[in-house]
Amino acid sequence: MSSTRDIDDLIEMMARLPGLGPRSARRAVLHMIRKKALVLNPLTALLQRVGANVRECVTCGNLGSADLCDLCANEKRAIGELCVVEDVADLWAMERGGAFRGRYHVLGGTLSALAAIGPDELRIPKLIQRVAEENISEVILALNATVDGQTTAHYIADQLDGQVRLTSLAQGVPIGGELDYLDDGTISAALKARKTI
Amino acid sequence: MSSTRDIDDLIEMMARLPGLGPRSARRAVLHMIRKKALVLNPLTALLQRVGANVRECVTCGNLGSADLCDLCANEKRAIGELCVVEDVADLWAMERGGAFRGRYHVLGGTLSALAAIGPDELRIPKLIQRVAEENISEVILALNATVDGQTTAHYIADQLDGQVRLTSLAQGVPIGGELDYLDDGTISAALKARKTI
Repeated sequence: MSSTRDIDDLIEMMARLPGLGPRSARRAVLHMIRKKALVLNPLTALLQRVGANVRECVTCGNLGSADLCDLCANEKRAIGELCVVEDVADLWAMERGGAFRGRYHVLGGTLSALAAIGPDELRIPKLIQRVAEENISEVILALNATVDGQTTAHYIADQLDGQVRLTSLAQGVPIGGELDYLDDGTISAALKARKTI
Repeated sequence: MSSTRDIDDLIEMMARLPGLGPRSARRAVLHMIRKKALVLNPLTALLQRVGANVRECVTCGNLGSADLCDLCANEKRAIGELCVVEDVADLWAMERGGAFRGRYHVLGGTLSALAAIGPDELRIPKLIQRVAEENISEVILALNATVDGQTTAHYIADQLDGQVRLTSLAQGVPIGGELDYLDDGTISAALKARKTI
């Protein structure tokens, strides 16, 4: 449809990235070609470096450029607290929050009967091993508040019962949230967990 | 904020592409890393090829992988009709329409007093040269219906007056358009250009 096979292929591939469609892919590709020195070439170099270097941390499953990710290798992070998340995007979200100073464990998904994902498909055996071997005092289950996320949290809680302190993120009204726009489940959770002022 | 400097840089650069923001860039980058063999590596290779090969056609300004773009080199395209567009995105849009079988001339922008863009900053001298040298019978001014687009169309019409047949795209109700959602300018243009059924 456009000028050359390569540009067409590039647009098609960009259009399949999450968050992009054919129209925005065309705009992005034209933008890159117009700013070749400023955008296209540096982007190509970065993709090459990321493709060659980035891998999963052998301990926690986070992404990094060595066998141990930057967080696991960072001696300033508290060893006692372990935060369990579904995937790397959730870890990044926690880090943006900036409130957690411990280490992470990335499961790589959730248990799912429908998709036939059992504990061994996730990093759950490794989690149990870490709790047994590392000096962990608290496991924070920061899984998504979905059915699969909560099923996984319950399964892990069962497995680790009695070995370590287990906590989960508080549920309630988001900062800046308006009651009128919240779903019923969140409002009742916030009411149940109400605090004395 | 994430795991490695390279991933952060990649997210930042993707987020600056038109149509993407920080959140969609993070999702796209994670998607690429997860599907390294299927997405990241082929995308890198394509970007490299596009960066190395794609250039502007010396005749029309379209993008291609040789000095003459595929459209200018295609002997099946009618030589007599020349369609003048603002940029390559407009050329692609015309080609998707599939109704035009002639050749193109990409101006590379519009005249703009504010941005100090005169005829020599655009491919207007080359257009005048092409009309004088090639066997062109009709110039179709397919410029955007904006103030700058129409100013540019008038300027080109002045320059080529008497040398060639000059036409512009019809204005009216878009196919599938509802009158209720159209702006007043379009409705009066469609009314002025009304046709006997």
